[in-house]
Amino acid sequence: MEQLKGSFENVSYQLTLECAGNGREEFMPSVRGSQRITGAVGCPMWTGVRLRDVLMASGVRQSAVYIGYYGSDTHLSGDPSRESISRGVPIKKALKEDSLLAFSMNGTDLPFLHGYPLRLILGGWPGSTSGKWLKRIFVRNDVHNGHKMNGYSYKVPCEGVPPGSDVAEKDMCIIEEMPVKSLVTFPRSGVICTLDRDLEVRGHAWAGDSSISKMHISTDFGQTWIRAKLDSPVNINVWQHWSSSISFPQKGYYEIWARATDKSSKTQSMVLPGWNPRGYLNNACHRIVVSVV
Amino acid sequence: MEQLKGSFENVSYQLTLECAGNGREEFMPSVRGSQRITGAVGCPMWTGVRLRDVLMASGVRQSAVYIGYYGSDTHLSGDPSRESISRGVPIKKALKEDSLLAFSMNGTDLPFLHGYPLRLILGGWPGSTSGKWLKRIFVRNDVHNGHKMNGYSYKVPCEGVPPGSDVAEKDMCIIEEMPVKSLVTFPRSGVICTLDRDLEVRGHAWAGDSSISKMHISTDFGQTWIRAKLDSPVNINVWQHWSSSISFPQKGYYEIWARATDKSSKTQSMVLPGWNPRGYLNNACHRIVVSVV
Repeated sequence: MEQLKGSFENVSYQLTLECAGNGREEFMPSVRGSQRITGAVGCPMWTGVRLRDVLMASGVRQSAVYIGYYGSDTHLSGDPSRESISRGVPIKKALKEDSLLAFSMNGTDLPFLHGYPLRLILGGWPGSTSGKWLKRIFVRNDVHNGHKMNGYSYKVPCEGVPPGSDVAEKDMCIIEEMPVKSLVTFPRSGVICTLDRDLEVRGHAWAGDSSISKMHISTDFGQTWIRAKLDSPVNINVWQHWSSSISFPQKGYYEIWARATDKSSKTQSMVLPGWNPRGYLNNACHRIVVSVV
Repeated sequence: MEQLKGSFENVSYQLTLECAGNGREEFMPSVRGSQRITGAVGCPMWTGVRLRDVLMASGVRQSAVYIGYYGSDTHLSGDPSRESISRGVPIKKALKEDSLLAFSMNGTDLPFLHGYPLRLILGGWPGSTSGKWLKRIFVRNDVHNGHKMNGYSYKVPCEGVPPGSDVAEKDMCIIEEMPVKSLVTFPRSGVICTLDRDLEVRGHAWAGDSSISKMHISTDFGQTWIRAKLDSPVNINVWQHWSSSISFPQKGYYEIWARATDKSSKTQSMVLPGWNPRGYLNNACHRIVVSVV
């Protein structure tokens, strides 16, 4: 570890890691897996060395297609005979400027649950690609085939399917960057406010390897949208802060819907944007409830 | 009737009548009443005389606030001791250029089910205001109080309420013009088409007393929208035809979502735009399913 720190440039980036199964509870028909409401996502400051510096120093052949990681964790069941998670990304993502071997989070050593002493950080891609307790990285001349790379894990149908379909394994494609998404982080849902004061609302928005170009909110279920203030990204693959001051026209029950648009003009849907068998990639608009009295 | 035809200018307008309870099946919690999917709406050519010509000839005082109609129908139960529906509109709507006493639909006498021999036509307002089998119209100095004007009929909460709320009668407001809405009328939902040919899609869009300024469709659950071709309105309070030619990027399951925007920039939501106790005014986007093979 000290050799790693000493041999390569140490860099820091704020990078977004997000669970690909966020919002799974909104699937109809329902699907198995953690049923998260607002989802597991974070964007701390990671410090480490660039994965590409280490890979280049080790030598990467022209035939390289994918990297795959192995960690020192056991299978979740604790059974040592079962494989633990071992995923990866295409070599192109691995060689990006901000793909890290990180030893620090928010200025201190990685907490154990976050992968101490070393982990991969691949911002904007499913969190499962950012392997923890890192032991080894293989550069491969084919798509990595570790545990949770095969079958239906972290895959969606290559073509859209009707809700509830059985999909053949050969027709499933690996999820790469995560789609545009945003959250309202303040105030909490259910807040009560008074008509005589504007309500300050704020949150984060992010979009895989891209960034956010516009942020809108609606207080009338999407019949009209107003533009929110949006901060510039502090680096790539980071979430951006947004905020807005809302003046309600009258008392009553409201929902505040938040909608981000990325650089390619792709925007969040108000509904689940396509059912898939394992419940991934639900980036539908987040909303909170407000009572104005 | 012949006297009416002979004494006043005979005029024809294509006018939209729509049931205020369309889309009630999408309410959560569910509400009682007909559970319609795509809804009861039509826009035939009505011929008659202007209500305002008749009212003016009869004399309308400055104190006039509302009109109320009475028809020759019995209560739906057939019980002659029960009042039949008797609704109305503010005098301002009654005096509009295209508010009609109609005796003809699409060039022939009104069919009996459509109110033969004479009915009110108040385009863009809830169909229940366009009284059939018309016997009498009262000009009133207060809001009309006939059957289905009181209680919870054709009313929504004056202020937004949480889904499932009990709302006091005094907090309910009468529905006036209907909100912006559109339908996909061709092809039928469930159609199968081939990747090598563009799909022609068409429908109608309307917006109470206003008109439609823009029409969009989405084939990716609202993540991107494309502008559809929109015809100009042939008169006020009429639906407008729209059409689009869709080129699908690959095979698979798609939903085509249609979204109209009215002259005031109010647009259709992708979700129910506000729960209310009787299930009115669901103008959420219509969608159809398409399989591309």
